[in-house]
Amino acid sequence: MAHPGDVSALAALLDRGALAAGTIRAVIGKTEGNGGLNDFTRGYFAQSLLHLLACATDEAAEALAARIPCMLSGGTEGVLSPHYMVFAAEPGEGPEGLAIGTAFGPPVAPGDVGNDAQIARVAEATRAAMADAGIDDPGAVALVQVKSPAGGPGLLLRSVAAGAMGAALALGDVPAGAAREAALLADLSLFSSRVSASAGVEVARDEVVVLGTARGWSPGLSIAVRPLADALDLAAVQSAFRAAGLAADPDVPPGQRARIRAVLAKGEPDRSLLVRGQRHTMLGDTDLDAQRHLRGALGAVIASVAGDGRVFVSGGAAHQGPPGGGLVAVIAAGSGEEA
Amino acid sequence: MAHPGDVSALAALLDRGALAAGTIRAVIGKTEGNGGLNDFTRGYFAQSLLHLLACATDEAAEALAARIPCMLSGGTEGVLSPHYMVFAAEPGEGPEGLAIGTAFGPPVAPGDVGNDAQIARVAEATRAAMADAGIDDPGAVALVQVKSPAGGPGLLLRSVAAGAMGAALALGDVPAGAAREAALLADLSLFSSRVSASAGVEVARDEVVVLGTARGWSPGLSIAVRPLADALDLAAVQSAFRAAGLAADPDVPPGQRARIRAVLAKGEPDRSLLVRGQRHTMLGDTDLDAQRHLRGALGAVIASVAGDGRVFVSGGAAHQGPPGGGLVAVIAAGSGEEA
Amino acid sequence: MAHPGDVSALAALLDRGALAAGTIRAVIGKTEGNGGLNDFTRGYFAQSLLHLLACATDEAAEALAARIPCMLSGGTEGVLSPHYMVFAAEPGEGPEGLAIGTAFGPPVAPGDVGNDAQIARVAEATRAAMADAGIDDPGAVALVQVKSPAGGPGLLLRSVAAGAMGAALALGDVPAGAAREAALLADLSLFSSRVSASAGVEVARDEVVVLGTARGWSPGLSIAVRPLADALDLAAVQSAFRAAGLAADPDVPPGQRARIRAVLAKGEPDRSLLVRGQRHTMLGDTDLDAQRHLRGALGAVIASVAGDGRVFVSGGAAHQGPPGGGLVAVIAAGSGEEA
Amino acid sequence: MAHPGDVSALAALLDRGALAAGTIRAVIGKTEGNGGLNDFTRGYFAQSLLHLLACATDEAAEALAARIPCMLSGGTEGVLSPHYMVFAAEPGEGPEGLAIGTAFGPPVAPGDVGNDAQIARVAEATRAAMADAGIDDPGAVALVQVKSPAGGPGLLLRSVAAGAMGAALALGDVPAGAAREAALLADLSLFSSRVSASAGVEVARDEVVVLGTARGWSPGLSIAVRPLADALDLAAVQSAFRAAGLAADPDVPPGQRARIRAVLAKGEPDRSLLVRGQRHTMLGDTDLDAQRHLRGALGAVIASVAGDGRVFVSGGAAHQGPPGGGLVAVIAAGSGEEA
Repeated sequence: MAHPGDVSALAALLDRGALAAGTIRAVIGKTEGNGGLNDFTRGYFAQSLLHLLACATDEAAEALAARIPCMLSGGTEGVLSPHYMVFAAEPGEGPEGLAIGTAFGPPVAPGDVGNDAQIARVAEATRAAMADAGIDDPGAVALVQVKSPAGGPGLLLRSVAAGAMGAALALGDVPAGAAREAALLADLSLFSSRVSASAGVEVARDEVVVLGTARGWSPGLSIAVRPLADALDLAAVQSAFRAAGLAADPDVPPGQRARIRAVLAKGEPDRSLLVRGQRHTMLGDTDLDAQRHLRGALGAVIASVAGDGRVFVSGGAAHQGPPGGGLVAVIAAGSGEEA
Repeated sequence: MAHPGDVSALAALLDRGALAAGTIRAVIGKTEGNGGLNDFTRGYFAQSLLHLLACATDEAAEALAARIPCMLSGGTEGVLSPHYMVFAAEPGEGPEGLAIGTAFGPPVAPGDVGNDAQIARVAEATRAAMADAGIDDPGAVALVQVKSPAGGPGLLLRSVAAGAMGAALALGDVPAGAAREAALLADLSLFSSRVSASAGVEVARDEVVVLGTARGWSPGLSIAVRPLADALDLAAVQSAFRAAGLAADPDVPPGQRARIRAVLAKGEPDRSLLVRGQRHTMLGDTDLDAQRHLRGALGAVIASVAGDGRVFVSGGAAHQGPPGGGLVAVIAAGSGEEA
Repeated sequence: MAHPGDVSALAALLDRGALAAGTIRAVIGKTEGNGGLNDFTRGYFAQSLLHLLACATDEAAEALAARIPCMLSGGTEGVLSPHYMVFAAEPGEGPEGLAIGTAFGPPVAPGDVGNDAQIARVAEATRAAMADAGIDDPGAVALVQVKSPAGGPGLLLRSVAAGAMGAALALGDVPAGAAREAALLADLSLFSSRVSASAGVEVARDEVVVLGTARGWSPGLSIAVRPLADALDLAAVQSAFRAAGLAADPDVPPGQRARIRAVLAKGEPDRSLLVRGQRHTMLGDTDLDAQRHLRGALGAVIASVAGDGRVFVSGGAAHQGPPGGGLVAVIAAGSGEEA
Repeated sequence: MAHPGDVSALAALLDRGALAAGTIRAVIGKTEGNGGLNDFTRGYFAQSLLHLLACATDEAAEALAARIPCMLSGGTEGVLSPHYMVFAAEPGEGPEGLAIGTAFGPPVAPGDVGNDAQIARVAEATRAAMADAGIDDPGAVALVQVKSPAGGPGLLLRSVAAGAMGAALALGDVPAGAAREAALLADLSLFSSRVSASAGVEVARDEVVVLGTARGWSPGLSIAVRPLADALDLAAVQSAFRAAGLAADPDVPPGQRARIRAVLAKGEPDRSLLVRGQRHTMLGDTDLDAQRHLRGALGAVIASVAGDGRVFVSGGAAHQGPPGGGLVAVIAAGSGEEA
């Protein structure tokens, strides 16, 4: 991507027939804004993408937006590189493979985030996305990606937390009685290490993408997810790459890097104000947002193993992996297409 | 450090006699400012340190400032932790050990940086610091740390470059004919992988600290320095730690972390606008300084191996390590004291 | 505007027939980005605007972009409010009125800015825009608004300067022998107080809008332009409003505010590092871009007189008004339509 | 001030006997940090000031710090200029004049801010400062300046609010039953237009300075305070200057500017997200703190009237002047000394 409105790489794939527009089920990407309330790079990319797909499919942009989740995280601090991942697949008769399912919740009234209603909405959408993927058993889910409306000033991180809690509830990783509004951003012992949530001003409904294993999907693509104990958890990062079938000694060797299809991670500035016992300054910097600090740091650790800056790293990881840590997911080799 | 004026940890060491103030030869530290022209955390720390040492030694603060280099880099982005390293040593009759030498150049007129005069001044000071350490052979020098005046708006990076070039010239890593003003920030093929330079508004003279091997210094401390090919060079970081006698598989194990005495690094946002072929956004971000981006990223990669955020990472690495890369130095075990 | 992609106010005007899309000659606006190289709010707005106009006119977006200058300045610091001004007019048989003319230069090769070629291109385009407006006498020109390609890292302000110099040359405000590349950003005694220039990554050609007086345009709209001696020049701001027919004692009274059609200004952080003899910190702030500082300050002074935050204030005023100052233009009452 | 540690102007006054160190009762200043939690320019200045005064008075720095309020606001955005005002006076037998009284509260436990205890502490300190000034009648108080501990991440604005509420309570501007913790930052209809409060990490106790009219102080200095309806309230700013005996038509004429002794103001980004009906972007900018936005804008409006950038403008004006507005105070001519 040359800029947030640049979808020329996907346009080229569609033009030369390497990808059928109708098979696109989700797009996940990282744009070069600040990742906050006034990050409009996500809306710009989404508008560009929908315009392209509307031309390619003859569907209205509104219809596409209601069918294809476009989940964008702003902020490519440090070595991170703007990029987007296009998930295209057609379920069929095949054996077990990497399944993808999507679902949208109902339109959300302004401010109706960060509460029990959002938790319930996202849990419901997660179950719908599992069904869409053909996954019955929550144990077969590898990763749930959630995007929710930002809800206005002061609500962004609450919306992320509620989205995470809702998906964790649907997976059974957090008990129903505990997945409550009062616990959001408060009880960080409640978490799922396979949920990645975010929020933004550019979406009006909760959107969910479920990745996991099910019959009827083309084989050849594997996904591995690992919790991160903290932002320095190099061993866990390596473990995720290895579990996805790649060497990581210490990094993925050049010859294997083309097999990486997607790397997604969540992380969080440790609220104890310490990382491994030493004071960090992420949460008290008036000039530089804490999540920008975090993405730059965690993103670099992961990119140093991947050997590639195209890592989707998103901050605001409350209830997504252990407190002060987060999670990392690696998808390697197979049918997904990376632009 | 609780804040940039906090020297209580050193005060406690002096109070209980664990360290004799008179043996302090240099202080190198990382404060939590932005690392730029308007970063006053360095001046604040220096004033606090000198006040403490003046009380402890009965020397005037001005005399101490003219004798003890206090080299501070601002900016603890991401997982980096504010800290300072106190180099205290008394040369004696011993065998070979980690030697430290210091030197100061003459007062610098405002604006007289980034030119041939500064290159010559720093080369001369580097030779003086080598002599102070008892090192004759440039090959025995492991690392030269340089700090120069900032020189005013627009000159900061030129001053860093000239300081680096001067030290590289003294070491013989760059030929005399090439170490010229015209090459500064222009010919990045000229570099030394054992020079770390910076500049700041809080110093009025070029200051040099040389670390290397010589007879007459207490043994038991080792230093290893490695060039970094780029900001993702995880293998080189591990190599430096291993060469300093520490395991790094992938990170330094908890039981060995207390043996780390100092970790210093330089890095640079790659001017090609690419890292390993992918576009980075460090050099075109109006809201976030490129060096803040860089420190957060490279610092995290190194800290993930050290298992500790107390890493001295400084940006502006022109002529310090390969273009787009930099260098990392590790000092492990021994007599230095870290506050 | 609710966000940079929001053109709903214009869409409503078009929908209800209050404005004919075919009469739109230029759009000038202020979006809420950072105004720098990575400000994509301008591209986002332009894409949204062109999509709307393409639907309304059945012309291709590319054709519209080549016919209607869309000049956007990012950065609504402080009290500034995101807004856009639509200039729509049809020349006819009428008496003298506020004339508008537009012109585009040829496509610009990357990096071909900040040089003699750009000065010549913009001078030529300015003459073409004057002709388009039916203005023969440069003395009848009130304001020239220029937008040029950004040209890449480090070139943005040079491109602004060359655009300004080119227009100043065409107006005869700077002599031909002096309007040279070597003078850009260097000889600030060369300036026009009726040229406002900017640059951005979102345009690929120099674009010029000329406003002035000529026969054949609808009367009833007046424009006044005043140089600003510095960023505190309150008296000059009031003078511009008064010359445009509005009271300003000290501010435009509420009953007259609806008559304001457009307020445009340029300003510059004084390079002497002083404003009226006192040190300012705009040019040495690593965390906050100097132009963001400037826009927030100058914009507030002007808005306090206008009684309205919808002021187009753009930084980088070299060669546009006196050094350390700039200019302000007020258009009041009449046929222009403000969204 | 050349930098936040620069007290050379005051040192010169003391050296040449123009000011007796023993008569200094308070220092109020503006340093060039970001004004937030990690603004250490305030601590740096305070350390430098105390060191100077300790040398000049032979009192210990700790004793001076417990006797002389040093109230600093960080952030000199836009045209604002770093400066400090030294309030020196000796009460005597004279007629009515500008009185100054100071008081300190007890040491504050970490986090014990933003609550009823702080409101009570500051009210008590305000009464003590009134007594110190010899002011019995709250109606004779022109301005109360409060500084409180920051209290840690997330508490800064609560601490400011509680300091303001405490002083407003002591003045009788807010009724006792209403000045409660629950109203802080919530019920903005509770305010005093003659209280200016701030908070910072560099103070450990609530500090209060009262300015007003009482017998026994040297005459010749006048103070005027006006509420600001919003950040564009140019008329109110002019009114304050005029009430202090200065012309302001529109600005203070050059010949009168030397009579300005101090200009202090508070302001607040309007929580309605609108200024005079137009959307502002101060409260949703992830890259630029809302208070930095505000200070740059309001400071420029005031400085454009003063004709001087040495204006003390502080954000976080909840309960200080009308909601979305604030207040401005002008001290003109007389015995105070401005460095």
